[in-house]
Amino acid sequence: MMRLLRRLLIGKPLHNQEMAHEKLSKLKALAIFSSDALSSVAYGPEQIMIILAASQVMAYGYLGPVALAILVLLFIVTISYVQVGKANPGGGGSYSVAIHNLGEFPALTAAAALFADYTLTVAVSVSAGTAALMSAFPELLPYEVPIDLVILFGILMLINLRGIRESSTTFVFPTYCFVFGIFALLLTGFYQALTQQAPVIPVESLSKQWDWTMSFLILRAFANGCSSMTGVEAISNGVPMFKAPAPRNATITTMWMSGILGFMFIGISFLIMHFHILPQDGVTALSQVAEDIFGRNWLYYYIQFTTMGVLYLAANTSFNGLPPLLSILARDGYMPRYLGARGERLNFSNGIILLSVVAGILIVAFNGNTEHLISLYAIGVFISFTIAQTGMVVHWKREGGHYWLPRAGINAIGAVVTGIVVLIIGITKFFYGAWIVLIFIPLMITMFKKIRKHYDDMADQLHLPMEELNPAIAAKIFPGKNIVIVPIASPTSVVAHTLKYAKSISEEVIALHIATDEETGQKIQEKWHNWNPGVQLITLYSPYRLVIQPLIDYVSELAEKKGPNDYITVLIPEFETRKWWHRLLHNQTGWILRTLLILKENVIVTTIPFHLTK
Amino acid sequence: MMRLLRRLLIGKPLHNQEMAHEKLSKLKALAIFSSDALSSVAYGPEQIMIILAASQVMAYGYLGPVALAILVLLFIVTISYVQVGKANPGGGGSYSVAIHNLGEFPALTAAAALFADYTLTVAVSVSAGTAALMSAFPELLPYEVPIDLVILFGILMLINLRGIRESSTTFVFPTYCFVFGIFALLLTGFYQALTQQAPVIPVESLSKQWDWTMSFLILRAFANGCSSMTGVEAISNGVPMFKAPAPRNATITTMWMSGILGFMFIGISFLIMHFHILPQDGVTALSQVAEDIFGRNWLYYYIQFTTMGVLYLAANTSFNGLPPLLSILARDGYMPRYLGARGERLNFSNGIILLSVVAGILIVAFNGNTEHLISLYAIGVFISFTIAQTGMVVHWKREGGHYWLPRAGINAIGAVVTGIVVLIIGITKFFYGAWIVLIFIPLMITMFKKIRKHYDDMADQLHLPMEELNPAIAAKIFPGKNIVIVPIASPTSVVAHTLKYAKSISEEVIALHIATDEETGQKIQEKWHNWNPGVQLITLYSPYRLVIQPLIDYVSELAEKKGPNDYITVLIPEFETRKWWHRLLHNQTGWILRTLLILKENVIVTTIPFHLTK
Repeated sequence: MMRLLRRLLIGKPLHNQEMAHEKLSKLKALAIFSSDALSSVAYGPEQIMIILAASQVMAYGYLGPVALAILVLLFIVTISYVQVGKANPGGGGSYSVAIHNLGEFPALTAAAALFADYTLTVAVSVSAGTAALMSAFPELLPYEVPIDLVILFGILMLINLRGIRESSTTFVFPTYCFVFGIFALLLTGFYQALTQQAPVIPVESLSKQWDWTMSFLILRAFANGCSSMTGVEAISNGVPMFKAPAPRNATITTMWMSGILGFMFIGISFLIMHFHILPQDGVTALSQVAEDIFGRNWLYYYIQFTTMGVLYLAANTSFNGLPPLLSILARDGYMPRYLGARGERLNFSNGIILLSVVAGILIVAFNGNTEHLISLYAIGVFISFTIAQTGMVVHWKREGGHYWLPRAGINAIGAVVTGIVVLIIGITKFFYGAWIVLIFIPLMITMFKKIRKHYDDMADQLHLPMEELNPAIAAKIFPGKNIVIVPIASPTSVVAHTLKYAKSISEEVIALHIATDEETGQKIQEKWHNWNPGVQLITLYSPYRLVIQPLIDYVSELAEKKGPNDYITVLIPEFETRKWWHRLLHNQTGWILRTLLILKENVIVTTIPFHLTK
Repeated sequence: MMRLLRRLLIGKPLHNQEMAHEKLSKLKALAIFSSDALSSVAYGPEQIMIILAASQVMAYGYLGPVALAILVLLFIVTISYVQVGKANPGGGGSYSVAIHNLGEFPALTAAAALFADYTLTVAVSVSAGTAALMSAFPELLPYEVPIDLVILFGILMLINLRGIRESSTTFVFPTYCFVFGIFALLLTGFYQALTQQAPVIPVESLSKQWDWTMSFLILRAFANGCSSMTGVEAISNGVPMFKAPAPRNATITTMWMSGILGFMFIGISFLIMHFHILPQDGVTALSQVAEDIFGRNWLYYYIQFTTMGVLYLAANTSFNGLPPLLSILARDGYMPRYLGARGERLNFSNGIILLSVVAGILIVAFNGNTEHLISLYAIGVFISFTIAQTGMVVHWKREGGHYWLPRAGINAIGAVVTGIVVLIIGITKFFYGAWIVLIFIPLMITMFKKIRKHYDDMADQLHLPMEELNPAIAAKIFPGKNIVIVPIASPTSVVAHTLKYAKSISEEVIALHIATDEETGQKIQEKWHNWNPGVQLITLYSPYRLVIQPLIDYVSELAEKKGPNDYITVLIPEFETRKWWHRLLHNQTGWILRTLLILKENVIVTTIPFHLTK
């Protein structure tokens, strides 16, 4: 039943040999990896406007320069990341670069930053998409969080658990629809801008006298705009998913993505300037632009709906980015091992589930209002950018070759520029949430290191010394005797059943009865004598009516007397009830005994299931 | 550590022989069992007024007759219950009477009604007490539910877990303080009524023309007033807690309780009439009476604070009433057996915990606003009254003797009167919550019966047939062989440790490796060959990377081939980690295997703990 449901939802298991087929073409990869980056034009330019307009600085004079600065930044980051992807065909992006070239600490910093970025992306994108749906159907408002969770677990998680290929087929269509719509909007807008007269606005608002206090504000606007660049690194983390030749295909896809992103970003910024759009409550800047250009016709609704769709899809980028990163961390021992194993559909299913759960917790904790977490993205992303670029400089230098100097130069420029961006975001947005990231990253690094330490310790303890591999010494593992203890309440068929197993594993079996008063104790002894199952019965008296303590004491005493190679096995009969709630009708003594006895060396607790048939 | 905390909170375990000491004197029993009944004068008369006044019927003309009717009812119920206590020295009240005289169905109805009544009493009394505290300190308002839970779990549950004697000493003082305060209030009030002139009120409001539509209203007022009588049955449920001679002492205590209750009830009703008190929002009628008589001085505050105290204590009545009832139900097989066992302090600790948890859930579910559950009390209580009295009629008749007819007569009157009250409450308050009780009781009865059925079924299955008690046939339980399977990932010291135990319990040990690809499989075979631990290694290939399924399949196949008396034991090594979170770093394959394999007949799953030391 469970298995059938599993097959239906996730599909049949895939054979190891089907691995090669699960690779992405460039066209599909572009849709999968870029929905995060591309969807950000829906809010990126607006984020800049919000800062400039809110502070009475008339915006249009400075939007242009800020947007151009971001375009330049995008260009630098793209060029740098093309080199990252080429040099790390194994995927893992910033983390891989850093672990190979810079050492543990910067690598873990990058991993922590990326972890924060990916989970935030899922939480924010899902709730932003639902928020768009809410504005269309306000009567759904009370169900906002449940809808978020259905989208997250019922759609995104499930599709990703089915596997990569399916996810790309599902997601290619909406992403390209969105891109197509925005291109149509931009081209129509440009045509109108060339042929029609711009709306007249007062001259004095076009530009303002420069003064130094404004520089902080403009930097903050720039920091806000950087949120448009999250997702650019996604491709370099997923290089192994591309069809061969993977590095080359990844490079080309990165170029395409950045080109489209840059064009849309600068285009929308231009139209905002041209139409003198100002931030307005409840209506996005993109919506205002679309309304000015198209009017309220179907083209306008087309833009709105594809925007909503692409916002949901942006969450999917993380599903393709984080699980491979987690698997690399797991293989290096910084995350639980099982995050590194491919599931039955050949994807990293545990990582997919972990990501969904963390994002789900964020959504529930913030009650679906995760929009103000947007600003937390950017700092994590740029920290990982900086580390990756720095790592690449070391990489080229170490590798040498003809062109190492210009290559290192490109990445050095990238490192310096993105490092400056980290400082700008960290300073201008410190009190707006950047501090959370700066606390979270050290916590994550500590966790990574503790996990690694545990695995290292364990490996030490599990190691079989060379002499034990010698067959002559292997004889040493022949054991001593095994004393079996069967706690009983009174002679029943369960006891008979348990004694039968007890005799099959040892010659030395003791039945143990804890009596709370002498009368009962004698009655049981008598019954036992009449039955005579060939096993001695020891009765312990417990006038304080404790059952577990006397048993533990008895076992402990026995454990002290036995030889170092001897075992004590305690057999606990357990009822396997036919209905789940029947279990509540039996006391949990077995479970408690098990928990307490498991702490003792060479004491084994075995549960003997007794199947109730009605 | 845990043990020390337990000793500190609950006290040292008590020996069986200390049982006799844990009995109550009359003075203590009165305080323990009567706080519920006595505290109800704080709202009982007011509940009548609310109905009469809210409906524009001027109240004073009918308050007197209604109060007198309730007094008569109290007298009848008390006399009847004195007989219940005498005839059932084992405690259990209505349930015991019904099971012995009327049969299963009425007995379970009474038990369900009492269960509802007791848990509601705890929830309502605790939140009413806290509400009183809130009116004094409104700044505590946001912490209402947490305070409720601290009182419930931190004080009431803990004191009751410590044991009966302690609880009486703790609770005697506040109950008597409350009684003393109310007596002082009443005597002062009576003196003033005799010596001073009553306030002048318009004559037409004193009485109204009778008309038939008013009768329903007056019956509803009467039904409301009946909430004052909850708790009267508490003593008859707790007869075994009294010092010897228990039945006689219980009778005397019941008389005293009813006398005090009746005096206070009628006294307060008289003063409400005399001072022409009308219901007022946020101020209780008792508070208005106290203010009129004492003015706002320390005597007024004394009344307020002792009222608050006694409301908290009322909850305690249930702690002394429900656990013994549950223990009787458990012994009869209608509730889980462990509710019938005396804990280390000789009380029914599991019942105390169950009551606290259910009341806690009610408080949290109603967010601390449980006052409107007050009306649910009365119907449950009167259902159990009616059943008990009917049962007593049968009891006297069956027992015969000289005075059986007058005795049966008293209980017959009780049965008829309380039966009429059930009808009155059920009809007049049906839409005000009585319907909930009428749904709850059948559900509870179904549950009782299902539990009983499970225990009966189990007894059938556990029964050892007579022939098995014959020593000659006992030899049959000598078993066949035991095949031990040890799943391994690679040869490590954990595997060595597990094989050692495997060899101690059987000659026939199989090591089983699930390889996800051929290369790894061959490498492990080679290592195993070099090590040569004297156990054969079987390698299964699983190209779909499933680990659990091939193992289950292998065991199932083996299980089909083995003899009917043979066993298969699967040994699963489990890491006992030093820190709890280390456990999260290991996969839970062992637990899943255990859950799946436990369903198979004669397959035993044993966990071999491997203690990690760092």
